[in-house]
Amino acid sequence: MTDMQNQKLKGSFKLTRVGVKYVKKPVTVKRPNVEVTLIVDFDLYVDLPAELKGSHLSRNLEVLSRVIDESVREPVSGLEDLGSKICQELLVRHEYATCSEVHMSADYFLERGKSNGNTSLESYKLKASAESIRNGQTRKCIGVEVIGMTACPCAMEEVRIRQGIEDDNVALSITHNQRNVTSLSLEVPADRPLEADKLIQIVEKCLSSPTYEILKRADEAQVVIDAHSNPKFVEDVVRDVLHEVLEQYKDLPDDVKVSVKSESYESIHKHNAYAERDTTMGELRA
Amino acid sequence: MTDMQNQKLKGSFKLTRVGVKYVKKPVTVKRPNVEVTLIVDFDLYVDLPAELKGSHLSRNLEVLSRVIDESVREPVSGLEDLGSKICQELLVRHEYATCSEVHMSADYFLERGKSNGNTSLESYKLKASAESIRNGQTRKCIGVEVIGMTACPCAMEEVRIRQGIEDDNVALSITHNQRNVTSLSLEVPADRPLEADKLIQIVEKCLSSPTYEILKRADEAQVVIDAHSNPKFVEDVVRDVLHEVLEQYKDLPDDVKVSVKSESYESIHKHNAYAERDTTMGELRA
Amino acid sequence: MTDMQNQKLKGSFKLTRVGVKYVKKPVTVKRPNVEVTLIVDFDLYVDLPAELKGSHLSRNLEVLSRVIDESVREPVSGLEDLGSKICQELLVRHEYATCSEVHMSADYFLERGKSNGNTSLESYKLKASAESIRNGQTRKCIGVEVIGMTACPCAMEEVRIRQGIEDDNVALSITHNQRNVTSLSLEVPADRPLEADKLIQIVEKCLSSPTYEILKRADEAQVVIDAHSNPKFVEDVVRDVLHEVLEQYKDLPDDVKVSVKSESYESIHKHNAYAERDTTMGELRA
Amino acid sequence: MTDMQNQKLKGSFKLTRVGVKYVKKPVTVKRPNVEVTLIVDFDLYVDLPAELKGSHLSRNLEVLSRVIDESVREPVSGLEDLGSKICQELLVRHEYATCSEVHMSADYFLERGKSNGNTSLESYKLKASAESIRNGQTRKCIGVEVIGMTACPCAMEEVRIRQGIEDDNVALSITHNQRNVTSLSLEVPADRPLEADKLIQIVEKCLSSPTYEILKRADEAQVVIDAHSNPKFVEDVVRDVLHEVLEQYKDLPDDVKVSVKSESYESIHKHNAYAERDTTMGELRA
Repeated sequence: MTDMQNQKLKGSFKLTRVGVKYVKKPVTVKRPNVEVTLIVDFDLYVDLPAELKGSHLSRNLEVLSRVIDESVREPVSGLEDLGSKICQELLVRHEYATCSEVHMSADYFLERGKSNGNTSLESYKLKASAESIRNGQTRKCIGVEVIGMTACPCAMEEVRIRQGIEDDNVALSITHNQRNVTSLSLEVPADRPLEADKLIQIVEKCLSSPTYEILKRADEAQVVIDAHSNPKFVEDVVRDVLHEVLEQYKDLPDDVKVSVKSESYESIHKHNAYAERDTTMGELRA
Repeated sequence: MTDMQNQKLKGSFKLTRVGVKYVKKPVTVKRPNVEVTLIVDFDLYVDLPAELKGSHLSRNLEVLSRVIDESVREPVSGLEDLGSKICQELLVRHEYATCSEVHMSADYFLERGKSNGNTSLESYKLKASAESIRNGQTRKCIGVEVIGMTACPCAMEEVRIRQGIEDDNVALSITHNQRNVTSLSLEVPADRPLEADKLIQIVEKCLSSPTYEILKRADEAQVVIDAHSNPKFVEDVVRDVLHEVLEQYKDLPDDVKVSVKSESYESIHKHNAYAERDTTMGELRA
Repeated sequence: MTDMQNQKLKGSFKLTRVGVKYVKKPVTVKRPNVEVTLIVDFDLYVDLPAELKGSHLSRNLEVLSRVIDESVREPVSGLEDLGSKICQELLVRHEYATCSEVHMSADYFLERGKSNGNTSLESYKLKASAESIRNGQTRKCIGVEVIGMTACPCAMEEVRIRQGIEDDNVALSITHNQRNVTSLSLEVPADRPLEADKLIQIVEKCLSSPTYEILKRADEAQVVIDAHSNPKFVEDVVRDVLHEVLEQYKDLPDDVKVSVKSESYESIHKHNAYAERDTTMGELRA
Repeated sequence: MTDMQNQKLKGSFKLTRVGVKYVKKPVTVKRPNVEVTLIVDFDLYVDLPAELKGSHLSRNLEVLSRVIDESVREPVSGLEDLGSKICQELLVRHEYATCSEVHMSADYFLERGKSNGNTSLESYKLKASAESIRNGQTRKCIGVEVIGMTACPCAMEEVRIRQGIEDDNVALSITHNQRNVTSLSLEVPADRPLEADKLIQIVEKCLSSPTYEILKRADEAQVVIDAHSNPKFVEDVVRDVLHEVLEQYKDLPDDVKVSVKSESYESIHKHNAYAERDTTMGELRA
């Protein structure tokens, strides 16, 4: 029987990535004290050599299904570990490929509260990825996307000047503030697991203020006061996250990749403000 | 030759809407002093009687193409008029239909500026629609979607209480403010054209402040001061727009439909706040 | 202490809907043989009388949180039941409101397979809603959104004519086929629970073919043959679902609302084909 | 007066990209025989050195506004040229930046028709970008995104085997076909303008078939026959585009970047199939 994908080609081109996008699957992740069901979006790719007509795309889905099934018996402790297994398995099943790649995204929830009586589950996004090279390394990353709040330090200063406020002790000055989305992604060394919860904590600490689902009036005022006591540009958010990463992950090796992005839905503009740094632990330490 | 759509069915069901979605077309609209090219998204539907197997969908595209072509020779003065012509033509071509419906959406730009030196083209959305009943009325609507800013009156008051501010004359109190999207849609009587530009003006007047693409520092401070001098819930925005509509369109008859929606991307929450009123001029006057 | 939302207004307007949008929460639904964790998007609204300045939006989140917390102790059997409880509780907490409304959406998974060896979890969407009137009824709906496949009967016929195929017994004719998204929503009577799984079965039965995540080559050919043996317009899909609903739910009362929508991402066009029927069991039976 | 963005920092980090996203503007592009109004989405960035607190984001908007204003007097011949001017101007205004970057996206229309009587404006997307290095090169790219159709060669072969069709001369075999989105992007040398229209032609030639807004029945059958006579994997589409680029752009230098992506909304699956190649003219020639 013909296997069309296996047809040999002459004078053709290799392809960088061939695979499937937007595959949804429930996945259970197990940690020492908690078990979470995540609804995960997967994109899976391998490369394709010039002489082969097609990649066997159904193998991607079989690999995905099997690795997730196995995770029921032998639980994974994080999406990045699941991705790592999938990448290695993709290279086994696609014997012609030299590299594989998986991207994952899922809603995630943590309990938060401004004051005692009003905790609630706040929503975040997990973003994990992994890539394998045949006979080489598998590298994996775990990332988080956090919605929070920024208050603009520049408009605050301008208003103070306009209003002739010189004394720093008077009431906080007004400024524009807005919803902000900041993401932090770290490469995860093979022998050094990282906690997504801690990444979320780092980002929330670096915003003008975290945001909360349930805020009774006194709490609402406190969040507003917190944010105005702590005004931040998107540039500040990215840099403060980088500082915090350096501080909290002293043991991570120099080649570990770090990526931080911060985007503010500016309340005074129709467009967004954006800042980003793609780097490594080594470059940050330099 | 068989015409499959024309096949007669027994014991089947009529359908409320059959048609095509997401058809993109450039359209030129001509007004006394201005000619604008809009890139318009169209959805077009007719109903289908129980005894017919299918609607001739290609006729929808032919009607659309022809009416837009005609608009080059005989310019239309607004999207709602284009929609009205399309609806009537849909009933001519779909001889089996009893009603037709068109929805349109397009980016739109107006020059705005906080102070003299810095005007720029601000972006808005036009949302128009039309529906025709065979041997009956064609009704048409023009709507706008405006991005602006709201500052929360409740958190402002709470902060004043917390900070012991009793005198209304001191500096404005801080509060959370955020990007807001407010839309206003009005039915357009056959003999009484309405201006989208005026609808945009009405909405911008009813926000805590309009927003601007280019704001040098002094202007930025002024927008922040304006917004805090004019704090608004989404409820306030919707009601103020309704008041303004009543005031500015005294001549519109009682059966004219009015719809106002306001959504704030809350800076202190991960979710949005929303208010809406669907009504008629008559109900508003009652 | 001032309660700004409680301020009394004169000469203002009532609002149709005031509330919050895009609140995400994990919810556990328990049925006789299965327990599922859903990640649910919630929109929650009440109306607001003319004389009140604002709706207490934080109450919406408190209600949501409490009802979901209760569902851990006393499990709900479906999203529509959760929505029903939320609606009733919203009217308790918003003492000024005359009606409340909740919309919910969540990914959902069922095991499917074309042949024995290759089952997998296919993804669907659940869409539920509920609305309450004070001192009146609470009505609730459960709906599903199913991705499947349609093959066009008209192009198939045209190709047969072009190719001079007269005998119906020869190989199936080619036609365009495409991804289709069909949704079915049914009102759920208070004393007559409905199963989302059954709604998904009904929709899948009415498409040219369901679609599958994992298809080895023989299965892939079978799906293609199935779809071409069963060509359908979007109009056919909607009507076949309506027929099936009539057949399978003979006991549902006449006032039960039924909504069916089908949209095909036409492979031969850049736009989508669409058909819809909004009706009641009574109208369908007429 | 304090300039907060100009504050000097110690021990901080440089940022890779700081700027604004989602700025919408109408732009007029002028070519020998045609003048087109495009509604363009812009993202604009510069880098930021470690010792500066903030980037002056309003300058990005001023640059954008001025370059577009100038284009009214001195028309640009393509989005990539506009991007190139913006990038250079960004480096003038952000005196601290070492590089700048602009990304642009716009709907675009070309007249197409399957047969004489039924031409219509088909919609495409233009995607252009530019980046500048201070005292170095400005590189610019023009890209197109084309919606078309693929028919699967593998399912076609499987069906032939299943149906015992051995003779290649009999009627075309059925297979699954679907909407496909393919993009091609080419770097544009300073002295060698490229035509987006030609890129669109290349992509349309490499799909199983282009798609059309208006297809009367005979044309519809012809598109179906064309697509089935020309079955393609996403891998085939990418490679055929690469071949065509090599053939049509023999004069382009080796360092010119080439990117091709093809994504099929599989009709038999809920997920998409995807293939990609990022390369240079030199690598393709090797």
